[in-house]
Amino acid sequence: MIGRTHNCGEVLEKTIGEKVRLKGWVQTRRDLGQVIFIDLRDRSGIVQIVFQPEVSAEALAIADKVRTEYVLDVEGTVIAREETTINPKMSTGTVEVLVNKIEVLNRAKTLPFQIEDETNVSEDIRLKYRYLDLRRPEMQEIFKLRHNTTKLIRDYLDEKAFLEIETPMLTKSTPEGARDYLVPSRVHHGEFYALPQSPQIFKQLLMVSGFERYYQIVRCFRDEDLRADRQPEFTQVDIETSFMDKEDLISMMEAMMIKVMKEVKGIEISSPFQRLTYEDAMNRYGSDKPDTRFGLELVELSDIVKNCGLKVFTNAIENGGIVKGLNVKGGATKLSRKEIDDLAKFVAIYGAKGLAWLKVEEDGLKGPIAKFFTEEEIEAMSKVFNAEIGDLLFFGADKKKVVFDSLGALRLKFGKDLGLIDKNKFNFLWVTEFPLLSYDEDEKRYVAEHHPFTRPVKEDVQLLTTAPEKVRAEAYDLVLNGYELGGGSQRIFERELQENMFKALGFSEEEARNQFGFLMDAFEYGTPPHGGIALGLDRLVMILSGRTNLRDTIAFPKTASASCLLTNAPGEVSGAQLKELNLSVLPRKEEKVKA
Amino acid sequence: MIGRTHNCGEVLEKTIGEKVRLKGWVQTRRDLGQVIFIDLRDRSGIVQIVFQPEVSAEALAIADKVRTEYVLDVEGTVIAREETTINPKMSTGTVEVLVNKIEVLNRAKTLPFQIEDETNVSEDIRLKYRYLDLRRPEMQEIFKLRHNTTKLIRDYLDEKAFLEIETPMLTKSTPEGARDYLVPSRVHHGEFYALPQSPQIFKQLLMVSGFERYYQIVRCFRDEDLRADRQPEFTQVDIETSFMDKEDLISMMEAMMIKVMKEVKGIEISSPFQRLTYEDAMNRYGSDKPDTRFGLELVELSDIVKNCGLKVFTNAIENGGIVKGLNVKGGATKLSRKEIDDLAKFVAIYGAKGLAWLKVEEDGLKGPIAKFFTEEEIEAMSKVFNAEIGDLLFFGADKKKVVFDSLGALRLKFGKDLGLIDKNKFNFLWVTEFPLLSYDEDEKRYVAEHHPFTRPVKEDVQLLTTAPEKVRAEAYDLVLNGYELGGGSQRIFERELQENMFKALGFSEEEARNQFGFLMDAFEYGTPPHGGIALGLDRLVMILSGRTNLRDTIAFPKTASASCLLTNAPGEVSGAQLKELNLSVLPRKEEKVKA
Repeated sequence: MIGRTHNCGEVLEKTIGEKVRLKGWVQTRRDLGQVIFIDLRDRSGIVQIVFQPEVSAEALAIADKVRTEYVLDVEGTVIAREETTINPKMSTGTVEVLVNKIEVLNRAKTLPFQIEDETNVSEDIRLKYRYLDLRRPEMQEIFKLRHNTTKLIRDYLDEKAFLEIETPMLTKSTPEGARDYLVPSRVHHGEFYALPQSPQIFKQLLMVSGFERYYQIVRCFRDEDLRADRQPEFTQVDIETSFMDKEDLISMMEAMMIKVMKEVKGIEISSPFQRLTYEDAMNRYGSDKPDTRFGLELVELSDIVKNCGLKVFTNAIENGGIVKGLNVKGGATKLSRKEIDDLAKFVAIYGAKGLAWLKVEEDGLKGPIAKFFTEEEIEAMSKVFNAEIGDLLFFGADKKKVVFDSLGALRLKFGKDLGLIDKNKFNFLWVTEFPLLSYDEDEKRYVAEHHPFTRPVKEDVQLLTTAPEKVRAEAYDLVLNGYELGGGSQRIFERELQENMFKALGFSEEEARNQFGFLMDAFEYGTPPHGGIALGLDRLVMILSGRTNLRDTIAFPKTASASCLLTNAPGEVSGAQLKELNLSVLPRKEEKVKA
Repeated sequence: MIGRTHNCGEVLEKTIGEKVRLKGWVQTRRDLGQVIFIDLRDRSGIVQIVFQPEVSAEALAIADKVRTEYVLDVEGTVIAREETTINPKMSTGTVEVLVNKIEVLNRAKTLPFQIEDETNVSEDIRLKYRYLDLRRPEMQEIFKLRHNTTKLIRDYLDEKAFLEIETPMLTKSTPEGARDYLVPSRVHHGEFYALPQSPQIFKQLLMVSGFERYYQIVRCFRDEDLRADRQPEFTQVDIETSFMDKEDLISMMEAMMIKVMKEVKGIEISSPFQRLTYEDAMNRYGSDKPDTRFGLELVELSDIVKNCGLKVFTNAIENGGIVKGLNVKGGATKLSRKEIDDLAKFVAIYGAKGLAWLKVEEDGLKGPIAKFFTEEEIEAMSKVFNAEIGDLLFFGADKKKVVFDSLGALRLKFGKDLGLIDKNKFNFLWVTEFPLLSYDEDEKRYVAEHHPFTRPVKEDVQLLTTAPEKVRAEAYDLVLNGYELGGGSQRIFERELQENMFKALGFSEEEARNQFGFLMDAFEYGTPPHGGIALGLDRLVMILSGRTNLRDTIAFPKTASASCLLTNAPGEVSGAQLKELNLSVLPRKEEKVKA
């Protein structure tokens, strides 16, 4: 036999008359008595191959025993199909291959599900047989897209003189941030490595080393309870630069995303991207990662209603909260009373105690709470809401966070349910001026909104010791269609400022020194101003491939309980392994009760 | 100020007259009273900047307080140096920058060592202050070379239609191979993930999925006692293909290495690379990764000496061992008697009980063992040795392994000590036909020489159940200058053969199913023939950059006890962290005694 000459998808009209050798999988097989047709599939596509007794009785006899997903090695001649059998849906639909030689490279038993895009198989089954799930053309496309995106980003950063530098996976556990995955040390009794939540400190140290431009596409780990868009291990495009300010970095990232969008999606995106301060984002969208593909912005009502007759509103304001509204255009006719009532349950998820509403009718605002407002208040609200007949007005009155979260979620829900979102739009957006710190009620201390190495905005530095909650961060999140694609910031590069930051976070001097002493030491040996960003690659690929499930973008993902249904990881290990690590497993609670 | 206009290394003669703004580190500072000269360094190189009172008294006053490794932001004009002050050693040596503005971006205290290439600082200090060690130009060069090598490999594989696909880091522990690093699961009581020793199984599953060409530059982990060329985490270029046979893969890898050598080192390497069977490599070089940059091959003497008068020789042969020799050309005059005697200690490391030798003198072979041989034996040996006056002949007589290991090591030692190695040579070499299995005396069973998924050579398959030690593997190691760069093989892709392999390894059916059942199941759903290779990236970079210490190629390496001297990883973790993982640390042995 000659060597493999073509991929299946390459057997096009121009190959008519050629002798070809193909290798691939049996997509379908049709037995028409004396002739057998097989759709042969490989990574590149599908082509029809034909077995006829006059070409090779031997090949036909073998093809007779072939079944779906068998792996074949065939040799034959490309011919034009008859006019009536041309398949315009296939790129190879005008040709077929008359097979004179066939070898079955491997057989296949009946599959647990068909290899086709329209699948209603449960995700558990798909994950258990992931190797078959990944055979489906739409899954293959996602990983080609992922490869192309990654390649483009690497090429772009290489052009911009970034060096790809690898940082350790076995590193040190730190108390800040999310929960670490730990790795016991066999050599150092009772000690542990931690898997990195990000290479943050190492990339900053690389700046101290004078590498100036670093990048890495790197696995990171968080041992957190999982949501649909979280995985215990995830991949980020990690970037750090010296001597570039926020504007330099932002415009470089915009150019990179423009290139990705153009080359991967064929879509022209213009720069500069829209920017919103954190405060504006929250006030207008109730979210620090707003989906700006549609309007439906929140409106501010606190001033208008602060003296109204509705206690829920005035109490909220008196307790330091706010009252905001959301005008669902034409909602008065689109939503039934029951649907409106059910929304109260929806906002309850976000802590809202209820959901007040009003309908705009010809003779004014109607609804259970209408009576609590004066004519002036109604008029002022109508103006702010830009209320028109048929509109449905919702109200949120509570602490800021509850109002933002509930009305923000409600806005997104209407955006989807009412079809307000143009799925072909890709709205990039920078959110800036995040608060540096937020007060954690459980821990009774300030925690870093991004991380403890984020630089305060210059004018706010002196507030760090006096009014920490007022300090804005020199940070910038990149948002795409309501997803946080990544977060970046300029970093602290002076020992004293870093010490003050740790103080603000409630670290004692000793704690700060024990945990981050080496970094603060490094700052004293000529550390350049630096900053960087990290983009979630899985999430980017998810959005680019039009998916909503992060698992579809990861070859071998974990379930919500961090299990791999294919390999059954995690699993038990031997007593000898544990002993070598000087560890023992505590008894389960029920075992304790028994004992 | 204008933005940064140039990197330091770009301020060349063509920029004379230009206004430039530079940012970088103070390499050296010379104060000549009214004028201050500073060598300013950034990633690209060094340029001299000058402060003069007539240009800016203010800048001069600031420069007066500047010290080594301060970070500066300067603006000035490029001028030609006076003829007498031109420095031909610097690419920027014909120019200097007259500074009119300066800002100190950060200060530096006195460094623990100078940022210069010729350093005699201990490696421990270098690792503790790794961020300063990496500032040294020779270290910067290594990481640029690493970046370039990685980029070339990625580009090459992308051109060849390989998809970069990521595989999990949190996976399942398997009993085969080296010791796993374990990661306790918080959610699954008493269960553990393992960090991958390689993505072997996942990349094979990707072949089952029909991706056909996969690559990944990926971190792998082995919890083994470390040697100079081992690290607990290392990076490999991991490749797997379907439908390509051994020859396809080998020639593709050769083309890749030729490209790397040409573009990274400017060296033309020709293909095909030399090939040696495992048996030949052992017989001729005493090593399965021979350094072929020099001769000094072992010679076979067993047949000649099998009836000689020297019991050590005849006993070795009677016990199934061998007698081999090494002719050190001109060694009789180069080595003193004491040096020769000391070599016995050297070979003892490899289990040799002694080291017999003979000198070739004008009147024949001389030395303590000469008397044990007949004239015919002397003559036959002389011929095989190609003995000439002044040569020094060494003998190894023992079990095969001891003879190969000891004479192989002795060969390498002489290669280095006698300057036989041309350091500019890059000798690539394939070693093929490895044994599939070797018998492990400790475990009293066969273990896989490569791994349990390696395919037996076709003609040897039937020996798997009858004479496992005779089965050759369809495996190929890529060797460069005496280092194993990587290992590849064709894989088993049939359930039955894989089952037989596990049987040969002493697995019960249940053990095989529990550990690798999902893989064997996958083989039943249309798995294509496939094979692949994994190259050690750290080692490749080490050889390309002319280093001998693997740690020099890793930004933040670990010591021989798997510690990071910079971050002090591993470290203790809180009791709360352990409790969440349902673990407790066993008391140390001395603590047990106390208790």
